[in-house]
Amino acid sequence: MLSTKCMSGLLRMRPAVLSIRTMSSPPTDGYSYETLAVSVPKENVFHVQLNRPDKLNALNKVLWREIGECFNQLADDSDCRAVVLTAAGRMFTSGIDLSDLAMLAGIVMSDDDLARKCRAMRKVITTYQESFTSLEKCSKPIIAAVHNACVGGGIDLICSADIRYCSSDAWFQVKEVDVGLAADVGTLQRLPKIIGNESLVRELSFSARKMFSSEALHLVEGALDMASTIASKSPVAVQTTKMALVHARDHSVQEGLDYIGNLNMSMLQSEDVRIAAMAEMSKGKSKATFSKL
Amino acid sequence: MLSTKCMSGLLRMRPAVLSIRTMSSPPTDGYSYETLAVSVPKENVFHVQLNRPDKLNALNKVLWREIGECFNQLADDSDCRAVVLTAAGRMFTSGIDLSDLAMLAGIVMSDDDLARKCRAMRKVITTYQESFTSLEKCSKPIIAAVHNACVGGGIDLICSADIRYCSSDAWFQVKEVDVGLAADVGTLQRLPKIIGNESLVRELSFSARKMFSSEALHLVEGALDMASTIASKSPVAVQTTKMALVHARDHSVQEGLDYIGNLNMSMLQSEDVRIAAMAEMSKGKSKATFSKL
Amino acid sequence: MLSTKCMSGLLRMRPAVLSIRTMSSPPTDGYSYETLAVSVPKENVFHVQLNRPDKLNALNKVLWREIGECFNQLADDSDCRAVVLTAAGRMFTSGIDLSDLAMLAGIVMSDDDLARKCRAMRKVITTYQESFTSLEKCSKPIIAAVHNACVGGGIDLICSADIRYCSSDAWFQVKEVDVGLAADVGTLQRLPKIIGNESLVRELSFSARKMFSSEALHLVEGALDMASTIASKSPVAVQTTKMALVHARDHSVQEGLDYIGNLNMSMLQSEDVRIAAMAEMSKGKSKATFSKL
Amino acid sequence: MLSTKCMSGLLRMRPAVLSIRTMSSPPTDGYSYETLAVSVPKENVFHVQLNRPDKLNALNKVLWREIGECFNQLADDSDCRAVVLTAAGRMFTSGIDLSDLAMLAGIVMSDDDLARKCRAMRKVITTYQESFTSLEKCSKPIIAAVHNACVGGGIDLICSADIRYCSSDAWFQVKEVDVGLAADVGTLQRLPKIIGNESLVRELSFSARKMFSSEALHLVEGALDMASTIASKSPVAVQTTKMALVHARDHSVQEGLDYIGNLNMSMLQSEDVRIAAMAEMSKGKSKATFSKL
Amino acid sequence: MLSTKCMSGLLRMRPAVLSIRTMSSPPTDGYSYETLAVSVPKENVFHVQLNRPDKLNALNKVLWREIGECFNQLADDSDCRAVVLTAAGRMFTSGIDLSDLAMLAGIVMSDDDLARKCRAMRKVITTYQESFTSLEKCSKPIIAAVHNACVGGGIDLICSADIRYCSSDAWFQVKEVDVGLAADVGTLQRLPKIIGNESLVRELSFSARKMFSSEALHLVEGALDMASTIASKSPVAVQTTKMALVHARDHSVQEGLDYIGNLNMSMLQSEDVRIAAMAEMSKGKSKATFSKL
Amino acid sequence: MLSTKCMSGLLRMRPAVLSIRTMSSPPTDGYSYETLAVSVPKENVFHVQLNRPDKLNALNKVLWREIGECFNQLADDSDCRAVVLTAAGRMFTSGIDLSDLAMLAGIVMSDDDLARKCRAMRKVITTYQESFTSLEKCSKPIIAAVHNACVGGGIDLICSADIRYCSSDAWFQVKEVDVGLAADVGTLQRLPKIIGNESLVRELSFSARKMFSSEALHLVEGALDMASTIASKSPVAVQTTKMALVHARDHSVQEGLDYIGNLNMSMLQSEDVRIAAMAEMSKGKSKATFSKL
Repeated sequence: MLSTKCMSGLLRMRPAVLSIRTMSSPPTDGYSYETLAVSVPKENVFHVQLNRPDKLNALNKVLWREIGECFNQLADDSDCRAVVLTAAGRMFTSGIDLSDLAMLAGIVMSDDDLARKCRAMRKVITTYQESFTSLEKCSKPIIAAVHNACVGGGIDLICSADIRYCSSDAWFQVKEVDVGLAADVGTLQRLPKIIGNESLVRELSFSARKMFSSEALHLVEGALDMASTIASKSPVAVQTTKMALVHARDHSVQEGLDYIGNLNMSMLQSEDVRIAAMAEMSKGKSKATFSKL
Repeated sequence: MLSTKCMSGLLRMRPAVLSIRTMSSPPTDGYSYETLAVSVPKENVFHVQLNRPDKLNALNKVLWREIGECFNQLADDSDCRAVVLTAAGRMFTSGIDLSDLAMLAGIVMSDDDLARKCRAMRKVITTYQESFTSLEKCSKPIIAAVHNACVGGGIDLICSADIRYCSSDAWFQVKEVDVGLAADVGTLQRLPKIIGNESLVRELSFSARKMFSSEALHLVEGALDMASTIASKSPVAVQTTKMALVHARDHSVQEGLDYIGNLNMSMLQSEDVRIAAMAEMSKGKSKATFSKL
Repeated sequence: MLSTKCMSGLLRMRPAVLSIRTMSSPPTDGYSYETLAVSVPKENVFHVQLNRPDKLNALNKVLWREIGECFNQLADDSDCRAVVLTAAGRMFTSGIDLSDLAMLAGIVMSDDDLARKCRAMRKVITTYQESFTSLEKCSKPIIAAVHNACVGGGIDLICSADIRYCSSDAWFQVKEVDVGLAADVGTLQRLPKIIGNESLVRELSFSARKMFSSEALHLVEGALDMASTIASKSPVAVQTTKMALVHARDHSVQEGLDYIGNLNMSMLQSEDVRIAAMAEMSKGKSKATFSKL
Repeated sequence: MLSTKCMSGLLRMRPAVLSIRTMSSPPTDGYSYETLAVSVPKENVFHVQLNRPDKLNALNKVLWREIGECFNQLADDSDCRAVVLTAAGRMFTSGIDLSDLAMLAGIVMSDDDLARKCRAMRKVITTYQESFTSLEKCSKPIIAAVHNACVGGGIDLICSADIRYCSSDAWFQVKEVDVGLAADVGTLQRLPKIIGNESLVRELSFSARKMFSSEALHLVEGALDMASTIASKSPVAVQTTKMALVHARDHSVQEGLDYIGNLNMSMLQSEDVRIAAMAEMSKGKSKATFSKL
Repeated sequence: MLSTKCMSGLLRMRPAVLSIRTMSSPPTDGYSYETLAVSVPKENVFHVQLNRPDKLNALNKVLWREIGECFNQLADDSDCRAVVLTAAGRMFTSGIDLSDLAMLAGIVMSDDDLARKCRAMRKVITTYQESFTSLEKCSKPIIAAVHNACVGGGIDLICSADIRYCSSDAWFQVKEVDVGLAADVGTLQRLPKIIGNESLVRELSFSARKMFSSEALHLVEGALDMASTIASKSPVAVQTTKMALVHARDHSVQEGLDYIGNLNMSMLQSEDVRIAAMAEMSKGKSKATFSKL
Repeated sequence: MLSTKCMSGLLRMRPAVLSIRTMSSPPTDGYSYETLAVSVPKENVFHVQLNRPDKLNALNKVLWREIGECFNQLADDSDCRAVVLTAAGRMFTSGIDLSDLAMLAGIVMSDDDLARKCRAMRKVITTYQESFTSLEKCSKPIIAAVHNACVGGGIDLICSADIRYCSSDAWFQVKEVDVGLAADVGTLQRLPKIIGNESLVRELSFSARKMFSSEALHLVEGALDMASTIASKSPVAVQTTKMALVHARDHSVQEGLDYIGNLNMSMLQSEDVRIAAMAEMSKGKSKATFSKL
């Protein structure tokens, strides 16, 4: 969605997303969170939902912590091969919670020495950054499906996902300059590398204006279908691909080639290659089944 | 403009740009230049105009020097919070001036030793590069509004701005190969990172063909309005945002996160955060006023 | 083509490409290959054609080797100033050949120690990578013109070219996850930097779905014309431009500026600058002729 | 110690180190570990001791985990301003424990698919790396004082400290090639940047020969005294210095200058500067006392 | 000097340095500074002397500015081929001047908003950094010859020179932690890359202890002779060598090889190569004379 | 040798090196070179000797080419596990051959356009660079043993080796500035990272003075013994170690840790680990025998 490219081929109906939002699969064992609802709507596809609908999914202290915990858990859960990230209720997220702002204000207002207050502030920022970076470090593909408002910290969050879809009523706002600060949880670092249009990125970041789905031209669609498709592929192939793409973004092409070479010299010897190749040669007659990873 | 993305949401009328061009606000005190006209059309918004209309705003020695001086001056002028860059007369710029070409030819033709000639040439190139890099080092957002022709060195110039708008009659030409040389004042380094379409960048750079506004699909619009909006935001937030975006372009995401963390641990304690937050909470009733920076 | 941008201004007819495919210029002296046909359809424009039409241009051991040899040879051939890369027969390429897969499988199946098998596998990967990187190291611009299917290793190949065109019947598939492995010959490193849409890149890479020309919106056109235009420009200017662009992709802007400065301090003293400048000043009356490089 | 430089000015007696080893300060509240003994021998100086003397301080699973936990805890403990790291018993450490080797062998011997075994192995390596990197991320200075043998993983460990001292009976061995593997917990990355003698580093790493203290010429000495001196300095100054040095090692000088500039623009306003400056001006009459950090 | 290596072959007498200090060559035309004395003791060798002996050469506002101006001037003065940097009077420098400290304290104590104070502080730091970085950007070799005390900012200064010599009574102190701050004018970035002993660098930086010349084991010697020798070499060769070494420090070997390749492809065609080669072949009979650069 | 560190523990007799020089093992099959003699004095240890004694081993066109070919061949020869590089006759090497200088002069003197001459020159430089970089790319450890003179290109050569030994009569000279040019085959890039003393590196590079073995304090010794020791270790471990060290030199510690992690996750499953571990546990009773790599 954040991308402004014409992707008419991807245009499907909005109901698909709606159904995700209203989906009521039972919570999954071992994934018990206060602010997140986790379910398994399709085989090997996990659904993580921001679950503070009465608070417009505002990002509070518990949610920052649980996001990190949840994606670290998913990273190690070999039943999970792809993740869909949505939000419950009226909007995706209104951004940071007032309680967190109050906590930050409390630091600023205290009588401590400036260096100590800076250290405390730095620690909060780092905690927030590490929470969302957990999506990037998780080697399973993550598809964010956004509806209605996605504001401030919400942009930071979806920029850490792999793929971004949105409904036709979605709008986005890099809100931070409106409250007198520069975004510091990833938007300024990741967004320019995601959408490849510096003019637009800087306009959004400097002016805090809303960008609507109609402008993004990327109205969307069946995140769940895509997640399910991905989950049916070899997890060795998919996860190695994600690791290589995240690495490539921040390195030269030659360094990237060395990186994938070092990985694939062993990964190519995995049984997944044999299994996938045989299914491929059967031309759809037999279906590949991969063991956990 | 240089971006080829569909940005229909941004499409507004061409007259807005025209009015900028014909705008006759009086020159601003302390900004006295031979080749540039500087005025303050709106509060905290500076307007810098290439002002050699009878020479089609060709870039000559004085203009190269004054661009650097002017943007260094703006960087330190706390009355300035956003800049609009336009050009007076028929076109934006025809590129490098014949007098500068003659000066370069003079170096080449001289009988000096090759190493000495190379050193002299290197010095001119560096002077040009530093002139335009001054736009990037200036922490105030700069919006270039281009009309009619923008050729050669003009592309180098607008690539150093933050945001690029253009009128419907604008066209662009990476002219350098047509005069037997590779562009060396920033286009080859910045353009690929601005428009994210390597095929197009290489086609334009190798063939020197003209790209028209209709192809860019990014016809535009009220640069002045956008500058005014930005100028109303917290200068602490806006300038920190610019510094973080320029840094992010050339560093890994992790390095970018550390960079903004080191800045914001103190910037979050600025009074601008409190002022902006209060105005925000008033839901439009009170307007934030920020002190200079 | 791989770019999803709207480039309506570039839309021309498909027959141009077809004519390339059926073009029967005689093979060029000294360019004798088993799997490639090399000709010179226009002055200084070389045409390299994948030439295993009965095998759907599958990439086999000989072809990997010859691609590297051919582009190394072109890099040193001063008669060549631009290259068009196409494929003979029904499709561009079906990807890696079964014989190569069998060879790789043979390594995996052998009873050797794992470290030895990894070393053998690493060597094959490096050989493949270096083959395609030869396109990037060749300082002459290369335009890939794709028709029908371009699968797996074919994507790796065209990502190493400078400019990508495609016909209206073309489709692309990052096939690797479907055979249980992550792409390792350049797609994951180069594609994100080429098309600037991480959402799309990751979707294609994780799901192995086909992307059609209609989605790419970049239906094309006269690669040969463009190659011919480029070949008429100063080879000093064009090749220095290519070197600077390849460097810029993997370095910071400041490093890129130093790089081009070091090159141009001498290149600006080339006779090509004088020749081009004079032709330019004649406003089309005299045509520039450049000596070989 | 690992440095081979002549540092005669640093030569003091061995008994100082011995006294550290036999020091019997009571364990500190809240630092309860199975394999580590933590005490506070001097004000604000923490002493961490590898405490498996009957096992020659072999690095086992518990110790790897506790090292990380302990230094993360020290990082946040504002009573701690400097750390001395020693080992109890006959030698510093014999390297990795047999039980950990058995665990690794178990992974290798299992019948799982290669990709799954690689993933499991990768996880162990990452766990080990992150354990020792915790010393580097801890912003308090850490002085390792080594006696007798320091083998294999022990080299990895002390390379993550800030300063390395050793007794006259100490010897060091990059043992890994002797057990058929390349070191992978930091020695190959950090050692060359620590001792600045590539010939020696490569000789030690390829041959696994022992290097004796007499060769290192860096016989040492009162780690505790140095730690105590450091602990008396401003913690703002000391910790910012450590952060800048760790950053400088891996970045260009210009990037390092920007980094320290962003930090110090606020740190220079700390009360520590005023307190330290006043004590300094008193020429020893008054002693600076800094609050916690 | 700062290097702790045994360099007995370099040991010569202290009187050589003394004679530099007492040298009374007349000031050079066009180099008129308040805090620096500039002379030309030998052909093409410039001598820059810190010249506030009654203030122990403390670094004050004027001196920071003039250092930058002087080395920028030398960079462009083709009569200069090598520079010796010394200090007049009892010691090399006592570090930053009290007046500058008062100015910094004035910023801290003011009632301005924190963000504004940070910006003011950042500007001072940047000014100091750029002053000393001017030594590194000047392509003429600079030899610092230090006697007696070199404290705080003095270490930053000599780290920016190319070669460091010292007398037998010299001592060095990274003083900053003693006044409650981390060094921020280059010591933490350049020193580790200069002396290649992280243990020692961190000990000096954390403890602010003095390091004496006897420890450094690098007592020295005829800086002037060395400068004169260097000044007799081809300036093309010497300055290109300096540029390559400064670049190499912050880049990979492969990037460094490309950099020198781009420079030397033209520099090898300089007349200096021919002149030097002929003198070399005369085996001392004829002496090479190079034109200015 | 190039290192100036005190390495008294390494001091052994000069005869060991002499015996290498006079060693007359028969040339090895398949290694037939005009300017190099290759033999196998000990099991798995290859001895490469510069073999133009009557020309003082001057580096001529053939030798540049054969160095590259020979080390590429050794890289793939699994009988080779370590290499000793020496030179036949009176000295190690006098540097570049007069015939090569004449060839370079021929390019400079020709009447071609400057850009064409630069391109020709760049090609020669690249050829030289790639020749010596082949030592670094070869994953087998290479020990250079130098006697008598090692001048100009000879320094470039030994900087590409892994370990450098020298006899007591050896001397070294970075000769390039004496012939009016900056070294461009690796010395300026690799030497500073090898010896960690910038003062010394810059003095040697700017002044072209000779450095004698007595100054280097690194008189040496049995290169052959060390090569033999290394050759007896697991080739998997040794070669992975070399790859990690070469990578570490040019990357950050964190990138280096990722690199070795990706390699070792599979290498740790090699049979070499089992074999080495069993020999290790036998405490010398059984000797490890490793298969080829």
